[in-house]
Amino acid sequence: MCGTDGCLVKCSSAPCATPENDIKDTFTTINLDHGDPIMYEPYWRKIGNKCGITFNGDDSLSYFANGKSLCWFMESKLEEQIKRLHNIVGNAIVDDYYIVVGTGSSQLMQAALYALSPTDQLEPVSVVSATPFYSAYPEVTDFVRSGLHKWAGDARTFEKSGSYIEFITSPNNPDGVIREPVVNGDQGKLIYDLVYYWPQYTAITIPANHDVMLFTISKCTGHAGSRIGWALVKDKEVARKMTKFMEISTIGVCKEAQLRAAKILKVVSDSCLDPKMENFFEYSQSLMTNRWQRLRQVVMASDFFVLQKYPLQYCLFTKDFCEAHPAFAWLICKGSEEEDCQKLLKEHKIHTRSGRRFGSDLRTVRVSMLSRDEDFNIFLERLMAIRGPTN
Amino acid sequence: MCGTDGCLVKCSSAPCATPENDIKDTFTTINLDHGDPIMYEPYWRKIGNKCGITFNGDDSLSYFANGKSLCWFMESKLEEQIKRLHNIVGNAIVDDYYIVVGTGSSQLMQAALYALSPTDQLEPVSVVSATPFYSAYPEVTDFVRSGLHKWAGDARTFEKSGSYIEFITSPNNPDGVIREPVVNGDQGKLIYDLVYYWPQYTAITIPANHDVMLFTISKCTGHAGSRIGWALVKDKEVARKMTKFMEISTIGVCKEAQLRAAKILKVVSDSCLDPKMENFFEYSQSLMTNRWQRLRQVVMASDFFVLQKYPLQYCLFTKDFCEAHPAFAWLICKGSEEEDCQKLLKEHKIHTRSGRRFGSDLRTVRVSMLSRDEDFNIFLERLMAIRGPTN
Repeated sequence: MCGTDGCLVKCSSAPCATPENDIKDTFTTINLDHGDPIMYEPYWRKIGNKCGITFNGDDSLSYFANGKSLCWFMESKLEEQIKRLHNIVGNAIVDDYYIVVGTGSSQLMQAALYALSPTDQLEPVSVVSATPFYSAYPEVTDFVRSGLHKWAGDARTFEKSGSYIEFITSPNNPDGVIREPVVNGDQGKLIYDLVYYWPQYTAITIPANHDVMLFTISKCTGHAGSRIGWALVKDKEVARKMTKFMEISTIGVCKEAQLRAAKILKVVSDSCLDPKMENFFEYSQSLMTNRWQRLRQVVMASDFFVLQKYPLQYCLFTKDFCEAHPAFAWLICKGSEEEDCQKLLKEHKIHTRSGRRFGSDLRTVRVSMLSRDEDFNIFLERLMAIRGPTN
Repeated sequence: MCGTDGCLVKCSSAPCATPENDIKDTFTTINLDHGDPIMYEPYWRKIGNKCGITFNGDDSLSYFANGKSLCWFMESKLEEQIKRLHNIVGNAIVDDYYIVVGTGSSQLMQAALYALSPTDQLEPVSVVSATPFYSAYPEVTDFVRSGLHKWAGDARTFEKSGSYIEFITSPNNPDGVIREPVVNGDQGKLIYDLVYYWPQYTAITIPANHDVMLFTISKCTGHAGSRIGWALVKDKEVARKMTKFMEISTIGVCKEAQLRAAKILKVVSDSCLDPKMENFFEYSQSLMTNRWQRLRQVVMASDFFVLQKYPLQYCLFTKDFCEAHPAFAWLICKGSEEEDCQKLLKEHKIHTRSGRRFGSDLRTVRVSMLSRDEDFNIFLERLMAIRGPTN
């Protein structure tokens, strides 16, 4: 996720309400490498104990949950609130879908690969995604050298016949673009990674209704520490195999996080319906809009950087036309092909992720837009000071 | 863990304070297949909100924890309480060990396999454990057909030269026996699965100080739903690789569960030191002793069943001699080799796990000793009624 180096060295994303902030401006590297979504903290601080939840000693002892779902460890309260929120936001169809809960969407990616990989073939199935693809896909697919599936790189250049699995990330991580499948072979299985398909990042243009769709509370509400993701799965057998994966790998998913996620999702849904509450998506969209406007101003004033542009689209949720405000900025540095943009930014104490990690080139970097205000402000200041590799 | 069949069909281990309990005595199968540790519930109910913990909306948003450990997602409060409890109980050395937290010990098994598998060999490393071995090992080792490691069965018959990994479960699951390594090759890596090495199950004869030791709160305190396990790891590079496994597979471990586990472990430690509190291990040991005494009486009166015997050993924690009271009974049915003990018990509405799953034979079954009182009582009643396959 963050690359161990980035985590073990002094990490600016750790809580920073300490005196050391005073010196951050000059000495500390701003870590915008990973997408730690702490920017919504002020909203949750204001909500405070309205979505508080208490666990006593005898709560949630069992491996089992009380629900009657195919996913035997899923708390029924969580299932209910996942369905309610999708219905309110309109970003995914949930009727007649099976829900499988996971320890974040990372675990669900692996569960989906496990469930969709053919078991009757000698060779592992090829797993592809169009560049620039989420940097974790190659690692997640190959880290234990599975005989079921094998990373095969860019979906656009994939030409092997037969079965394959394609990850479609929409809006895309790293570049925020809305995506469709690329390979279009007849023996393909598709995994839609929709973790950023929420109104603060993009227009909700249609309720998604794909065979396998992944979501996570991390990107929706910012509760990354809870490690709660969910898959909406059309086919019962696929949902059962994904549940089996979760059973073997972690014997289910933490009950406290599930129950807390249920409470948080309930507050988010309530905030969309109750005019007395501050609508979470209006709050978060406005934050993202503001950040993107300020970043675009800085980039416009620069001769050295370029940003991806996004079309205006009608959002069914906000009932208005809006531009995308992705969770990451996909920053392109002008210059020669050898230009190492990550290195350049690092010299200016901005830690980002190189385009190389996403199957793209050295001139691009992914920059998290989800940091605390303080870090974002320092990022803009430092970016403004960069005039190119020669300065 | 429980086998999906056992979970998706009517499952007696689900909370049962409902009217259907009235008819459980005659119609419902008692599920003692899995080791769901709900027997300590009365203790935790009595403790109640003394170990309650509340999460507000803005708590634990980040992927990162505040500690400075190698394991970047581990809450320092949990690390502190893990060390404190091991020091009080005396079951493991913690000084100079790295701690890696996992989503239950299942995830840590995989992390340990990942970290200990040689990466410079063409063939996956052989993974072994002496029969009867924990039934999950073959599945956990092979479920994604890893090219790093491969299940090779019974450690006692393993004769391949070169590198290997041996799981040593002590006390053993399923049969409660204290174990040592079996293979004793010079290129072996050992994973000590010590999840039952707590005073309620066995005498604490020595503080364990192996290279890799796995523990879980599930079996220690009964909080299985929290999915918190930890590894004590001597070598820094192994701990780093295990942390990397956790990072790729689930981007860390749920913060709520970690903080709650810290609180629960603190209460357990406090209960050992504060004479005004009911000592958790005295409580749980007394429960287990009572259950084993009653089970042994029933088995003594039977011509058809035999139980494993355990030696008296001096326990450094209780400062007394005691017999083991394992979390599972390893029940041996007399009769011919074809006797299917699991089938026989199932006909009497007792769901257990066949010896076959543990690399042993059909005449043995593993029976959970950790169910609610109600289920345990019905189990004894039904067992008493069995006179053999002909009745």
